[in-house]
Parts: sequence; C-alpha cells; structure tokens
Amino acid sequence: MSSIPSTITPDAAQFIKDRVRTIDGWPQPGVQFRDITPILQDRRALRTLIDLFVQRYIDAKLDTIAGLDARGFIIGPILAYELSLGFVPIRKKGKLPYKTLSQSYELEYASATVEIHEDAVKPGERVVIVDDLIATGGTMMAGTQLLKRLGAVVVEGAAIIDLPDLGGSRLLRDRGLPLYTVCEFRGH
Amino acid sequence: MSSIPSTITPDAAQFIKDRVRTIDGWPQPGVQFRDITPILQDRRALRTLIDLFVQRYIDAKLDTIAGLDARGFIIGPILAYELSLGFVPIRKKGKLPYKTLSQSYELEYASATVEIHEDAVKPGERVVIVDDLIATGGTMMAGTQLLKRLGAVVVEGAAIIDLPDLGGSRLLRDRGLPLYTVCEFRGH
Repeated sequence: MSSIPSTITPDAAQFIKDRVRTIDGWPQPGVQFRDITPILQDRRALRTLIDLFVQRYIDAKLDTIAGLDARGFIIGPILAYELSLGFVPIRKKGKLPYKTLSQSYELEYASATVEIHEDAVKPGERVVIVDDLIATGGTMMAGTQLLKRLGAVVVEGAAIIDLPDLGGSRLLRDRGLPLYTVCEFRGH
Repeated sequence: MSSIPSTITPDAAQFIKDRVRTIDGWPQPGVQFRDITPILQDRRALRTLIDLFVQRYIDAKLDTIAGLDARGFIIGPILAYELSLGFVPIRKKGKLPYKTLSQSYELEYASATVEIHEDAVKPGERVVIVDDLIATGGTMMAGTQLLKRLGAVVVEGAAIIDLPDLGGSRLLRDRGLPLYTVCEFRGH
C-alpha cells in the first residue's frame, strides 16, 4: 500500500474529524453518536475524505470494494469508481434478491445476520471492505468472513471513524484484518 | 442540461440494461425484481453507468446530490464526488440522528415515511435526487417534497431503471419533476 503524501495527511484527517457531528443520547441515552452527514454534504470535505482513501489504495492492486449496509454504501462506491473497480454490497438479511451466503454475529443482547451474493467476488480477488465507523467490529468481521468464504483476499478494512474504546478495531486486528481509519473518538 | 454525446448514448444504455439481472418471484410471487448488483460489481459497467450521469449533469450547475435509502446511496455519492458536490441522504424514518423533517407517502396497503436532516440543503440550492429504480414513484415524490420544504430547487430525478407500467414516472412528471432514467423494463 502506498503511504499517503505527508503534506496532506495530518491536516486532512483533522479537517474530516472537525466535521463529524456528535449527537448526545442518540439512538439511546448514554450514547454519543458520531454523525458523518456534515462531511458528506460539504463538497470540499467529501472530496478530501475520498482522496485520503484513494491515496491509500491507489497502488494496492485491488479488484473490488465491498461496502456494509447502509452507510458503507456511501463511501465504498465512490472509492470503487475512482479506482475503476467493481462495488459489492453486503446487506442485512433479506435485502439481496439473488442467491446469498449468510453470516451471523453477536450484538450486545441479540444477534444479527449479513448476506452477500454468491457471485459477488471471484476466488483470489483482492478486496477492501468499507464502513463509516468501527464500533464493536461485529458487522465488519461478519462481512470479512463472507468475503473469505467466497475465496476473496480481504486486504484491509477501511472506515472514516474508529471508536477504539469499544474494542472493535483491536478485535479485528487480532483476528488478522488490517485496518485504516481516518480519525478516532475516545469515550462511548 | 448538456445532451450526452450521441456516440456513446445508445450503446451505453443498452450495455447497462443488458447487465440488469431479473429475478422472478422476489420479494414475492408475481414480481420480477430488477437487480442492479451485476452492474455495480462489473468495473466497466459501473464506470459506464456513472459516466452517463456525469455527462447528463456536467453543465447543470448543481449544488447537491440527494440519494434515497439504500440503493440510491450507491449511485448518488459517486455522482456527487465526480461533480465536486455534496451528498445528502434521505432515509427511512428513525435512521437520521440529527433534527429532521418527515414526509409520509402511501404504499399499496400501508404508508411509509422518509426523513431528511433540516440542515441538509440551503434555500435555493439546485439538487438532483437519485434512486436505483422508479416503480410507483412514492419514495422519490416524498423525497422531492422534503427537499422543496427546505427551499431547494429540485432540478430532476435520476434513476438507472424506469418501470413505466407501474406509473411512477408518469406521476412524477405530471407533478412537475423532470426525470432521467438510463433504461426501462415493461411488465410488472
């Protein structure tokens, strides 16, 4: 993977982080939700954000970008187009119309399932999996497992925001998935 | 709006249409579902598709692209990035964390609600609203109403596929929303 030119990295990451909107008590009391919509609706911030990811992967010889339902659908497809790659959606159960593979994962008090089309990638394809934010890491781990079951090489997981205190990024790295995130927020 | 160079239009639209996968009986018996994932996962098809939209809007002096949850999140953000615009998500009820405006619309046996952040666009901004497919047109009509309530000028609705026999595209045009779609499928 190419390193990002040092002239743009620190300022660009801070520029992005400054535009994340924190919403206290959403979706439930005690949670500080990190809202990326101010980045998306600011044309300069959106270009800066995507350019960081493009610089990161420009030499990575990728075949496909996979994105996680639904905010991973916003960043992933732009990156795919910019790198002239295909885009593969990984969706919540019951949303994909063709033949699928399923993978369940644990949430705090329940479990959830994500799915991928069985023809989404070919064996040996090099894939980066994208979401907006890494919290507990459950969705990204399940998506990575789906891609591997199809024979893909999952080169890295990418997200705008890491919430390291929730442990997801450590878990994913411990299980062998390198990660790239633009910025992080401490606290829950 | 600039016209698309005639050398690429007819072939490009057919190239895209040929890659739509029809799935009989999904999500329920009697429905022929038009699946766009084969376009997305084919790097050449994805570029061709986006290039059609970029050519369409390159001179349209837009400010923002709005996309409808969740498949409109795939095409809309690429178009926004390519045109150096911001992207605004319009989501199903309860998914946006900040202050929202809501708009309900009728489905066959029920109603649904979409929402937009109240700071998503500024008055006077020129917006194109994007989805993957126009069926009954309910979601796109509701999304357009939200944008207009915020003072935006909705220049056009854009989608990959029109299903004209479901009446949505006629309804939207009758209510004053110009439309651009790449291809159409007859039948239900």
